[in-house]
Amino acid sequence: MSYRAPVEEISYFLKTSTSLPELMAQGVVDLSFDVVDAVLDEAGKFAGSVVAPFDRVADKQGCTIKDGAVTTPEGMRAAYEAWTEAGWCGVAAEEEFGGQNLPTSVTSALTEFWNAASPAFGICGVLTLGAIEALTAHGAPQLQHIFLPKMVAGTWTGTMNLTEPQAGSDLAALRSKAVKQADGTYRIFGTKIFITYGEHDIAENIVHLVLARLPDAPAGTRGISLFVVPKFLVNEDGSLGAHNDVVCAGIEHKLGLHGSPTCTMTFGEKGEGAIGYLVGEENRGLACMFTMMNNARLAVGVQGVAVAERATQRAFAYAKDRKQGKAPGVEGSAPIIAHPDVKRMLLTMRAETDAARALCLKTADALDRSRLLPDPIARAAALAEASLLTPVAKAFSTDAGIEVSSLGIQVHGGMGYVEETGAAQHLRDARIFAIYEGTNGIQAIDLVTRKLTQEGGDVVNALIADYRETAEEVSALNAPDFGHAGPRLAEAVDALGRATRVMLDRVADEPAKALAAATPYLRLYARAAGGAFLARTALAAYAERAGGATDPRLAARIAVARFFAENLAVEAKGLEEAVTGGAGGVLEAEAVLAIG
Amino acid sequence: MSYRAPVEEISYFLKTSTSLPELMAQGVVDLSFDVVDAVLDEAGKFAGSVVAPFDRVADKQGCTIKDGAVTTPEGMRAAYEAWTEAGWCGVAAEEEFGGQNLPTSVTSALTEFWNAASPAFGICGVLTLGAIEALTAHGAPQLQHIFLPKMVAGTWTGTMNLTEPQAGSDLAALRSKAVKQADGTYRIFGTKIFITYGEHDIAENIVHLVLARLPDAPAGTRGISLFVVPKFLVNEDGSLGAHNDVVCAGIEHKLGLHGSPTCTMTFGEKGEGAIGYLVGEENRGLACMFTMMNNARLAVGVQGVAVAERATQRAFAYAKDRKQGKAPGVEGSAPIIAHPDVKRMLLTMRAETDAARALCLKTADALDRSRLLPDPIARAAALAEASLLTPVAKAFSTDAGIEVSSLGIQVHGGMGYVEETGAAQHLRDARIFAIYEGTNGIQAIDLVTRKLTQEGGDVVNALIADYRETAEEVSALNAPDFGHAGPRLAEAVDALGRATRVMLDRVADEPAKALAAATPYLRLYARAAGGAFLARTALAAYAERAGGATDPRLAARIAVARFFAENLAVEAKGLEEAVTGGAGGVLEAEAVLAIG
Repeated sequence: MSYRAPVEEISYFLKTSTSLPELMAQGVVDLSFDVVDAVLDEAGKFAGSVVAPFDRVADKQGCTIKDGAVTTPEGMRAAYEAWTEAGWCGVAAEEEFGGQNLPTSVTSALTEFWNAASPAFGICGVLTLGAIEALTAHGAPQLQHIFLPKMVAGTWTGTMNLTEPQAGSDLAALRSKAVKQADGTYRIFGTKIFITYGEHDIAENIVHLVLARLPDAPAGTRGISLFVVPKFLVNEDGSLGAHNDVVCAGIEHKLGLHGSPTCTMTFGEKGEGAIGYLVGEENRGLACMFTMMNNARLAVGVQGVAVAERATQRAFAYAKDRKQGKAPGVEGSAPIIAHPDVKRMLLTMRAETDAARALCLKTADALDRSRLLPDPIARAAALAEASLLTPVAKAFSTDAGIEVSSLGIQVHGGMGYVEETGAAQHLRDARIFAIYEGTNGIQAIDLVTRKLTQEGGDVVNALIADYRETAEEVSALNAPDFGHAGPRLAEAVDALGRATRVMLDRVADEPAKALAAATPYLRLYARAAGGAFLARTALAAYAERAGGATDPRLAARIAVARFFAENLAVEAKGLEEAVTGGAGGVLEAEAVLAIG
Repeated sequence: MSYRAPVEEISYFLKTSTSLPELMAQGVVDLSFDVVDAVLDEAGKFAGSVVAPFDRVADKQGCTIKDGAVTTPEGMRAAYEAWTEAGWCGVAAEEEFGGQNLPTSVTSALTEFWNAASPAFGICGVLTLGAIEALTAHGAPQLQHIFLPKMVAGTWTGTMNLTEPQAGSDLAALRSKAVKQADGTYRIFGTKIFITYGEHDIAENIVHLVLARLPDAPAGTRGISLFVVPKFLVNEDGSLGAHNDVVCAGIEHKLGLHGSPTCTMTFGEKGEGAIGYLVGEENRGLACMFTMMNNARLAVGVQGVAVAERATQRAFAYAKDRKQGKAPGVEGSAPIIAHPDVKRMLLTMRAETDAARALCLKTADALDRSRLLPDPIARAAALAEASLLTPVAKAFSTDAGIEVSSLGIQVHGGMGYVEETGAAQHLRDARIFAIYEGTNGIQAIDLVTRKLTQEGGDVVNALIADYRETAEEVSALNAPDFGHAGPRLAEAVDALGRATRVMLDRVADEPAKALAAATPYLRLYARAAGGAFLARTALAAYAERAGGATDPRLAARIAVARFFAENLAVEAKGLEEAVTGGAGGVLEAEAVLAIG
């Protein structure tokens, strides 16, 4: 099935539900929506026609390794080269290094397109961009000069080397070593696992960003430094030199993302260590890596949206084509989309996907404001908002990716279980998004322990007040098209408000209870915020219809917001109960935990 | 990781929460719990030591086909032979044909063990048993005499041939033909797809039960007849004769269950048709097949429990072993089971698994009463109860299989995404259970349109009253160990009561709305009933503890029931809202459905 990038949907959302129009009007974003639409359109076409077609082949063939060299599936290199030649790699980077400095709300849309077309392809660009951002923010000018232009062009790709066998979520436990040399460079020794695109055959060089410890570094996370370790060393004239002492020792056999190599990387196995260059200050590596990780977390949320969108499109196409059984008003055998229970599945897929996208784009928008607004106080407020929304966007969207792709299999019936259909691959691919770049449990803990407490709770409470306003506007409209969306949303927002108060108290007084309720709290947040965001877009659509516009997409946006409020946001009550009344049962279940 | 069959758990449930003790006391079940425990124990050991070890290999190797012959993975045949030699195939069958006629509550436990050890192995026995049941209930004595002893012994396996490319959920659309011969046999022509163990190398013969139409049959489901079509014809002396004209034309490349061949079967391709024997009456085949399907539906629910149990055991073992981060009260690096968010995941897995098992065993128990109670009125009531619980047990347990195995991956972090770990296989295997033997959507529709309406709603209302009584007993106890489980359960049961009244009205007056709310209704039912069943067992455990018993399993049962009530049954409110207020938004979303 072909992939159709949701260009109109995203364009509409950017116009009605983000600050992009305002940023354009203020002149801090030097773009018009004509240009934005043209970019989205071009990218959508590229994703559908160049990237999407080889995704199934990539899944089937997978990657292979021989003598440390990794071969990616047929077509991957050609697609990657076409993609970089078209200039897509550098859209988010600074113009100084050859990038286009597009707003994150726009580049997030592009990230969605590449990853919907093929997540095994798209993840490579996500990591390169993360490395670009870390170097842009923390690299010395000389390092930037050597590496950034090539990375922005996509000629060289980037990686994040964090995880070690004993150090996954707990980076404090990492052991890779870095030894300073007389010439100011470092020698790196150690083994890193789960390194996406750690080795491949699609670009000239690979720029590894590696966390390691200096010999005299303090224990824990305050003794970690960040280094650039290129696969091939770079000569003074910019040409490639010797192969650095970094080797791919193996690739993983994974549930999905078969087209993307997941590598075990060994540094300094041959003896003298891999040559590395310090990024930022010694022992401050984790702070530098966090620059990369926060943006990567949003990008992984977008991957969840991407696969959910692809699965949703596939399920709709199948449900319109497949005939089975009778339905009221349909002669003969009915397309299964006519059956109410199938409608419910499809609407759930569409509503979850759109809510996840809204969460990601609102996060991206807050990031844009935090970077671009002229007023420093407004920038700080936007940054606090982005910080709070990032874990919600990451965790909810990746959970949605799993749930929606699983529902997509269900819509296909028995055919969904047969790999050739393509529906099953989406679930296999999506399953990692909830794990990498900080598991969703860690996102929930981050939200509760570090983000809610910003400004003593003022940040979260202001956002909740904003969601409440949206719910009240829907209620005040009293329009049949919205059904009971207004009151249902208001209930969800109120539940979030009450749960937030409880959690703020707990973070101070009963931290274990806060942790035990973090996951349902994050989901509750997403139910209320996602519902409010969809409703905000639907209110814009309603106003346009009231003004005489007849595009059927307007009615569809209202129906999706209504469905979400009436069928999904209603989870809020139960989630509130789990947050406020469920933590005790988690912490007092030692007998169960002992037995298993 | 080795599999440990939950023998004590199931034995405790059978003793405290089913009518098995009463049936034993009445003498209609000629067993003691000593015998039952010994059977469970033996089966558990066999599953853990003989079946489980080859499951990963079977997944990796999969099945192959060459010239119509299917080769199953290494070890499958040996395990199957050992299993039949130990007599496990016929435990549920009538003694007359060599079976042991054990109660369904006990044989369901055994089905769980085989399928937890290896669902690709276990499903073969499920299908053979289904075929045995159909022949036992509807076959002519001569057919029974030829086929049943061999099938009960497991020397011959059974299949269900229903699905055709154009006839999946809609059996009315099936086209396979059957032509009566002068000798009373029939000639069968047609193609069937998705036939589990349609061809294999683990037993001497394969007994296909095939749905087909006679030339003059009425259209739709009233024109379908059921036939026995053996792979090898059977000579008068019981020895095997010529190969029948039934051929495996291909096997599917599936998401999971790689060890189990899923076949396309062609009947009568060579010209004269496959020789078949009528089961039951002409044109009444669907009724006969339903005998098989209802029991198979429960067995598939049990498959969901089985994989959930296996995934849960694996996750607990990993979480106790894997060290990462700090936790209060733990020196150095803590096992991840010490982290509250991980505790929540593990408790969710355990509680969902136990609730699913309780639903399946309560269904099995109702089936036993429907067959064994002396009083015909009591038997009819038990049958109505079993009919109502079957779709709930099937759909909820298979959804739980998916959710729990997905959580199992999450507990493993990045390792969960690597196939060698084994966690990912559970999700791949479990994903089909929600689809085959009637999709979960069809189960929900069956529940709402055919089962709720039994006796004008009296059946369901009596069951709800029973669940309410359990909730009230928990509340009345006012025991700290139960936390707020009593009120939370009572709320869930009340929500179910209200939603049931709405649905009963709708089935009569607004059928489309009933269908549009069927899936959340089924889930609501399972939340209330599952919570009540776990609480019933926990009340028994509480009483034993009050009497001085100290087995830590008793405390664990209470903690699981509490966790379920406080964290999962609380979903009930939102589900009620989706049932009562969400259907309109499903049916008035044509704009969304048109666009996709």
